[in-house]
Amino acid sequence: MVDLNPPRGTRDFFPEDKRLQNWLFDEFAAVSRLYGFQQIDFPVLESEELYVRKAGEEITEQLYNFEDKGGRRVTLRPELTPSLARLALQKGKGLALPAKWFSIGQCWRYERATRGRRREHYQWNMDVIGVPGVEAEAELLAAIVTFFQRLGLGAADVGLKVSSRKVLQAVLQRYGVAEASFGPVCVVVDKMEKIPRDKVVEELAKLGVAADAIDGILQALALSSVEELEGLLGGDNVAVADLRRLFELAAAYGYADWLVFDASVVRGLAYYTGMVFEGFDRAGQLRAICGGGRYDRLLGTFGGEDQPCAGFGFGDAVIVELLKDRKLLPQLRHEVDDLVMAQEEGLRAEATALAARLRAAGRRVDLVLEPKRIKWAFKQAERCSAARLVLVAPDEWANGTVRVKDLASRQERDVPVEELV
Amino acid sequence: MVDLNPPRGTRDFFPEDKRLQNWLFDEFAAVSRLYGFQQIDFPVLESEELYVRKAGEEITEQLYNFEDKGGRRVTLRPELTPSLARLALQKGKGLALPAKWFSIGQCWRYERATRGRRREHYQWNMDVIGVPGVEAEAELLAAIVTFFQRLGLGAADVGLKVSSRKVLQAVLQRYGVAEASFGPVCVVVDKMEKIPRDKVVEELAKLGVAADAIDGILQALALSSVEELEGLLGGDNVAVADLRRLFELAAAYGYADWLVFDASVVRGLAYYTGMVFEGFDRAGQLRAICGGGRYDRLLGTFGGEDQPCAGFGFGDAVIVELLKDRKLLPQLRHEVDDLVMAQEEGLRAEATALAARLRAAGRRVDLVLEPKRIKWAFKQAERCSAARLVLVAPDEWANGTVRVKDLASRQERDVPVEELV
Repeated sequence: MVDLNPPRGTRDFFPEDKRLQNWLFDEFAAVSRLYGFQQIDFPVLESEELYVRKAGEEITEQLYNFEDKGGRRVTLRPELTPSLARLALQKGKGLALPAKWFSIGQCWRYERATRGRRREHYQWNMDVIGVPGVEAEAELLAAIVTFFQRLGLGAADVGLKVSSRKVLQAVLQRYGVAEASFGPVCVVVDKMEKIPRDKVVEELAKLGVAADAIDGILQALALSSVEELEGLLGGDNVAVADLRRLFELAAAYGYADWLVFDASVVRGLAYYTGMVFEGFDRAGQLRAICGGGRYDRLLGTFGGEDQPCAGFGFGDAVIVELLKDRKLLPQLRHEVDDLVMAQEEGLRAEATALAARLRAAGRRVDLVLEPKRIKWAFKQAERCSAARLVLVAPDEWANGTVRVKDLASRQERDVPVEELV
Repeated sequence: MVDLNPPRGTRDFFPEDKRLQNWLFDEFAAVSRLYGFQQIDFPVLESEELYVRKAGEEITEQLYNFEDKGGRRVTLRPELTPSLARLALQKGKGLALPAKWFSIGQCWRYERATRGRRREHYQWNMDVIGVPGVEAEAELLAAIVTFFQRLGLGAADVGLKVSSRKVLQAVLQRYGVAEASFGPVCVVVDKMEKIPRDKVVEELAKLGVAADAIDGILQALALSSVEELEGLLGGDNVAVADLRRLFELAAAYGYADWLVFDASVVRGLAYYTGMVFEGFDRAGQLRAICGGGRYDRLLGTFGGEDQPCAGFGFGDAVIVELLKDRKLLPQLRHEVDDLVMAQEEGLRAEATALAARLRAAGRRVDLVLEPKRIKWAFKQAERCSAARLVLVAPDEWANGTVRVKDLASRQERDVPVEELV
């Protein structure tokens, strides 16, 4: 017997699973369109070089990469942003800015020691290319809030932590830390909640960050208000100004109560350069629901001309856990309009023609393809949540009618064939 | 500079490409639902063992396979049917029969020498599990016809060639060819149009098929009507009976004029056991548009209990070529309802709040996120096919109004803010 399970760390989608996924993806797309974003897509298999960043990120250390038969290094993409950057560079000057793009795609990682974590998940990305101001981040956060609201979640259920990497940048500058260390330092600092503080200090030291600079970093990350941040960096610091502006815009959008300043948010991707944010559940039981930020230098690292960019990734896993916990997952049934059955084989052609007519009129019809008993038809009508059971039976047919049972009202009546719509 | 192209043989989808794909996939799904089918999905990466059939099929010789880091043989799936069979076996007795499933997924192949052929394409599959009669095939063919019709194609543009592998089976039996050769013989015979006849004869001989049997096969494949087939095999031959029944059902559905008996149709997949069919353009300029058939033994080859199955695969490439030729591709534009802009930065909060309100009412709003001139806004309104341009301007705002331009009628008027919906 072949292995009936999907490959380790991957999922099958039976009809009930696929209905849920379709619903979630439709919500992703609907929100993106409410914000005037256009959908794009790119191959699930990309060149490995798009992800070679050497900053110690988990995402690049867990690449699902391999050599193709032509000797090229390829990888199942771990995230969507580098592909999007590639497309933007491909368009070059021909890209009308700002570009507002979204995508929904599968992302992969490979962990040698699997701890029940999946190797694939889907991610919804929204990105704005060409807008330097925090208006882009404010718009992206608004879209996330709209999404949460449509799902029935409120500001008491979830929130959005925001900070800016320019805080860390200012601290590093103050202590004379080399600019090249910025990305790697951010990646280390992001691990704060996952690995012991000692280990973080050790890794920062390994990057050549002096002890007093490490203290400065840790102190900055512990700040709990924009006012404290202003005290540390001064009122004309760009991170402070950006954050104040973001909170103003959030108030204009009407989602100020969803926003929380949290200096400890750094995010794990090396390429973020400014504002960073993540969605979190207020109960504190789940991993980050989504995350994003500004990445003004990513296109440059690919050898192209830099463009101001901001975006987020929103996975399909944590949100479903959260909705399940809150009993907010929709009940999605298999649904057809009509179940059509010939009561005897001699009437199959008639039932078939009837089904064809109903479908041509736009009705979803489950046509019974085998000789079955009426009892079975009733059970099947339930399984496919049919609105009507249409029975082509000999006596009725002889009278020019079919037997129609309304499954909701349980009422049955004979309907002239030509009147059935 | 990194390579800005997608990996060889793969595609990027810019907004205009993605709109077309979404339209096509929505049609696939809509037709499937009209027929009461439920969507399923499975990993794009599968275990290689699902495709090890050793029948010389092109599809298994061009597997995009590799060894994962754990030493497992995996492959980017070349087709969807084996995964579907895996799911059916996984459900076992718990699967309510008949199961009517559809899926839309990416499939991969690897050719060492690429001739501009793509390495990935998407395929729409519809499958019926548990129906032994040709009613299943008739239903599947009806769905394909409905799809063509929705796209604006008629029986003069495209047709459906049908035959049955039971014809070949009867001929092989007559000449005492071993049953185990059936699949490989079909795979060779399918190449008839692609490789010289001599080569086909040579390959059949290599499979141990005797010269007179080869003659018998070639003779059967040249038959051009069901009547001739009946002459060869007799009226009680199952292939003849199946085909007659299929034509009757096609007449009941109303697509008899789309159907053509063509004994030379065999299809290239080893697992088909009965009826086989393919969609073709009447002009004869394109490869097969879609293909399918009955595969009653596939589950058994996986070590499970056999189930009668029939299904088809419909690629996303040839149909788009055909629609392009026929000028039937829809013009799909990026569309929003409103383009909202603050005429000066001091009114950004007001414009933002207005955009938020319009979105909450379900309107798709492109909000201008940077200081821009009115001239730019008009250009942008065109780019996103906005129905309205909503301008938050200082004088109007002071009067409690916004300037609204209807882009279709070119009429402008001032609308009280609270009345704007």
